[in-house]
Amino acid sequence: MVRALEWIDDRGTLRLIDQTRLPATECYLDIDTVDALVKAIKDLAVRGAPALGAVGALGVVVAMRQGEAEGWSPERLAAEVARVRDARPTAVNLAWGVDQAWPLAGSGLAAVLGRAKQIIAEDEAANRALSRLGADWILARTGRDKVRVVTHCNTGALATTGWGTAYGIIHELHDRGAIELVYADETRPLLQGARLTSWELTHDGIPHVVQADGAASSTLLRHRADVAIIGADRIAANGDSANKVGSVALALACRRAGVPFVVAAPSTTVDLGTACGDDIEIEERDAGEVLAFAGVRTTPEGAKAFNPAFDVTPHDLISAIVTEHGIVEPDTNPDPRLLARIAG
Amino acid sequence: MVRALEWIDDRGTLRLIDQTRLPATECYLDIDTVDALVKAIKDLAVRGAPALGAVGALGVVVAMRQGEAEGWSPERLAAEVARVRDARPTAVNLAWGVDQAWPLAGSGLAAVLGRAKQIIAEDEAANRALSRLGADWILARTGRDKVRVVTHCNTGALATTGWGTAYGIIHELHDRGAIELVYADETRPLLQGARLTSWELTHDGIPHVVQADGAASSTLLRHRADVAIIGADRIAANGDSANKVGSVALALACRRAGVPFVVAAPSTTVDLGTACGDDIEIEERDAGEVLAFAGVRTTPEGAKAFNPAFDVTPHDLISAIVTEHGIVEPDTNPDPRLLARIAG
Repeated sequence: MVRALEWIDDRGTLRLIDQTRLPATECYLDIDTVDALVKAIKDLAVRGAPALGAVGALGVVVAMRQGEAEGWSPERLAAEVARVRDARPTAVNLAWGVDQAWPLAGSGLAAVLGRAKQIIAEDEAANRALSRLGADWILARTGRDKVRVVTHCNTGALATTGWGTAYGIIHELHDRGAIELVYADETRPLLQGARLTSWELTHDGIPHVVQADGAASSTLLRHRADVAIIGADRIAANGDSANKVGSVALALACRRAGVPFVVAAPSTTVDLGTACGDDIEIEERDAGEVLAFAGVRTTPEGAKAFNPAFDVTPHDLISAIVTEHGIVEPDTNPDPRLLARIAG
Repeated sequence: MVRALEWIDDRGTLRLIDQTRLPATECYLDIDTVDALVKAIKDLAVRGAPALGAVGALGVVVAMRQGEAEGWSPERLAAEVARVRDARPTAVNLAWGVDQAWPLAGSGLAAVLGRAKQIIAEDEAANRALSRLGADWILARTGRDKVRVVTHCNTGALATTGWGTAYGIIHELHDRGAIELVYADETRPLLQGARLTSWELTHDGIPHVVQADGAASSTLLRHRADVAIIGADRIAANGDSANKVGSVALALACRRAGVPFVVAAPSTTVDLGTACGDDIEIEERDAGEVLAFAGVRTTPEGAKAFNPAFDVTPHDLISAIVTEHGIVEPDTNPDPRLLARIAG
């Protein structure tokens, strides 16, 4: 299994695979300064909500080591840690990871590093647990020995500290000999599906095809797939789930096709403080992501773009929300107390 | 208004704007061999169901002129005309255009060319007529003075012999001062929306934004649009409509959002010989269109793609089918005799 991030003990550095270079080039960044880390986060060399949680905690270690070597004052150290925390203001996990580690700074480097490693271990354990639950549910629901899966964006080892969420279920199904084919949406505009998910699927030897996002609905309607599985960036208290833009199209097609639509995420993604999908702020990203590709302008000069990064799938279209604590079925059982029971 | 195709009388050639080069470069292909024409059709230098109808008829002229110059046997000529007819399978119009012209071959080149020019004139007249009908229907249905429209792929002058179908309605609405904003799906993999529709909208001064195809569903679900309007490549006798892949996602989102979904096409697109959507052959195009972009590979070496060019929207999701002969509303009135009445 590939690792998005790894702490290299004997060098005292954070090693990241540079996701901006995938799939053409597999190269690594050894991060030992705050400047380098902030740049890597902003450039999306490392991305994915669970991965950013670990990066936040390990960022405190990076800052403490650099401060020790360069003789920073406590104020300087605090300011540098804050820079890591704010590198992507919309990613709540990054701040969460910093906040898990920074209070332990007074106890020394070993304590902080220990907490960061614990976060990594817990995230991967949660992913593996929810993957087993999700695989069980899908095989029981579809009644098939082998399933054909549609997935969207990247939810694998690259998006997490290891194993993956929606991708983790696919990997678990594959390990059980239960994957016939994966349809990986390319996921415009940033092509995380084409660049990253296809790379992980290739790496793991899982049979798959990449498809344009617009093809996903007809793949489902033509009964070429048995289930759609996606991750989540935030799950509201009523089960409405925000995920990469394009996700709700799969949910609508699944409903029409009579195919289950599964959302997989660690329990920490359930946000009981957000009542429903309407309360989830949808990040709008730079128009340039849509107006050009690979440095080539695809649109006429002067054209504008609308570029929301996420969409919200209403809970009544979701067959299963899978966390490491269990599964709820919001389409048939929308009682919010059920979701609260499997929240983090 | 730009012209996708034009017969150049004094040179005896078919002039096409090379749509693969837009919007960066505006250049033209002068076609005087069947090989060049088949390549232009397969490469999508010329595309769009109504434009392909005219190209089919003019293709008979191109073949007859080449056959005359090269001394082809009648059998060779028939075989070359069949190559034009079969260059793309899903759009009914290409074969229709050939079939309109080829029976006149015995009467000589002038008769065939005359029929082709008649097709061009009739297509533009049909587009203008259906655009008026469609605009009337949309303003009446939505009850708005200005509408926000989602559209997919390219259905403008570039896709037709002039004016456009779905785009023609948008243009008509704009001429009436009734367009607030157009959301143009970029339309992966070949980006006809980003490259061509945005270019036409810019050219015509119609306010618009380009969006990733995956964003269209949430644009509709968030009530940012009042109507979706698309073209069609083939409309079956029961109203099921084939169009560029990604179209059915809009139909599903429109239904959920309570927003009308409109299919606009000349009456010749209605194929009473095809009973329903399941009988429409869906062209699968080269995987390379999905696996790379602008010469840059977006996927790992060895990755495969699934690349259907079209999808089918079931008639019960279609609020209106608009042809120059009138409008039917298949979602509420699915009687196939109504559609037969406005067929070509």
